[in-house]
Amino acid sequence: MKLLRFGNKGAEKPAVLHSDGTIRDVSSLVSDFSPETISPALLRILASAEIGSLPEVPAATRIGAPISRTGHFIAIGLNYADHAAESGMPIPSEPVVFSKAPSCLSGPNDDVMLPKGSVKTDWEVELAVIIGERCDYVEEKDALSKVFGYAVCNDVSEREYQAERGGQWIKGKSAPTFGPLGPWIVTADEVPDPQNLDMFLDVNGERRQNGNTKTMIFSVAHIISYLSRFMVLEPGDVITTGTPPGVGMGMKPPVYLKAGDEMRLGITGLGEQRQRVVER
Amino acid sequence: MKLLRFGNKGAEKPAVLHSDGTIRDVSSLVSDFSPETISPALLRILASAEIGSLPEVPAATRIGAPISRTGHFIAIGLNYADHAAESGMPIPSEPVVFSKAPSCLSGPNDDVMLPKGSVKTDWEVELAVIIGERCDYVEEKDALSKVFGYAVCNDVSEREYQAERGGQWIKGKSAPTFGPLGPWIVTADEVPDPQNLDMFLDVNGERRQNGNTKTMIFSVAHIISYLSRFMVLEPGDVITTGTPPGVGMGMKPPVYLKAGDEMRLGITGLGEQRQRVVER
Repeated sequence: MKLLRFGNKGAEKPAVLHSDGTIRDVSSLVSDFSPETISPALLRILASAEIGSLPEVPAATRIGAPISRTGHFIAIGLNYADHAAESGMPIPSEPVVFSKAPSCLSGPNDDVMLPKGSVKTDWEVELAVIIGERCDYVEEKDALSKVFGYAVCNDVSEREYQAERGGQWIKGKSAPTFGPLGPWIVTADEVPDPQNLDMFLDVNGERRQNGNTKTMIFSVAHIISYLSRFMVLEPGDVITTGTPPGVGMGMKPPVYLKAGDEMRLGITGLGEQRQRVVER
Repeated sequence: MKLLRFGNKGAEKPAVLHSDGTIRDVSSLVSDFSPETISPALLRILASAEIGSLPEVPAATRIGAPISRTGHFIAIGLNYADHAAESGMPIPSEPVVFSKAPSCLSGPNDDVMLPKGSVKTDWEVELAVIIGERCDYVEEKDALSKVFGYAVCNDVSEREYQAERGGQWIKGKSAPTFGPLGPWIVTADEVPDPQNLDMFLDVNGERRQNGNTKTMIFSVAHIISYLSRFMVLEPGDVITTGTPPGVGMGMKPPVYLKAGDEMRLGITGLGEQRQRVVER
């Protein structure tokens, strides 16, 4: 199943992408897709509904982030060996963990706003995992059963804020609109192998990133199990799992986003995003 | 006003500490203290109520964290010059920003659980700020007007996870029960100067930390203004603002928490916490 949210920012309603390609309003079945409602029970309600008989959403409607808010927006750094190399960083021996402000969550096609004065805003196509059940010391073999679904994420990053302003990466990962997610959450049953998904990102029609989740250093199952030893993961937490090579910082010379640029990015089976870059 | 929550973990109800020292159940006025309800409007509702006529909560009732969940649990590192020195770190030229998992939020007197195998769990008494209004590029002169209130926070930290496991501090700051907050949120009108508050922390009756918020490197107003340039702060976000010297890591030799230890900590006007340390 593919779950999405439509409508104006802050007033989105939940919907399902129907098998005929239409978007169906499911707000009569569930108030919203949120940390409170994300659960196996939600999937049972939706699976037993006649989606095709629900109201159709006009195709031109804005699509929001597929979850109203995330309790915790966790990110994994340097999780593809060749991206670590282009970043001039050693290959990590354990997952590098940081976070993005929940307030950076954004619709998949919303404009990405450059922070005031920013000169090093960069792109990162990533596989995001949406947690469906509480994880507290979860074994790696059980970890994928805790996944509610998967989505495309653009882990937009301001490299000066991330690396040149003292301390921790969160500073460069959290500006508003720096977390486009979606277009939809694809439920885990439709992603039998999260470690074999092609991913790409274009800027202004030129291919910049090209990868496959099979080259991750730490698998999704390992990341979930690992994180659950350091913190409790809760339903609705989003983990974005790192980016393959091809970011602007790694180009020679580096190339960063400027107003007017267009990004297009996608992952096999999870859909595509398209963002225009704008000044604040 | 002093706002708190009482009852079993996960089922707390909102309350107010009445002027006669009794705790009064305000669940007839507001469903809970949460990011959805934290606002100037909430204060007006409570201020106009006859608190003394509301049901009294038995004194022995458990007190929970004073907010149901935090949208974002932000922390500032090395914000007291002498604590930076004892940590062997340079005095930062800009605030060091990291985050704690929202799932680590805990009641002020709940047991603190050592993570499995942990040998370097440490204490940190801190002034926490609860944001009341959205902050997006807020000027320093306006920043304190965005504060809903203040509370005591113990920024419990696992030093091996924080510093020896690769990457970012979040790994050592996020275990369940690592974020005791409260006993209450003291609303901002009752804290005219957040930069002149005494704070202390005892372990097993011995004074370990002793400080005053006047020796912060970056003031509360500066921190809020600074953060709002990198991320949008939202109502219910909690910012814990750094610890004065006297942590276990800074002792010679270092001393860490073990099962059976008791911590007691407090800040002038904001109340006290008391936690017992337990194995998981």
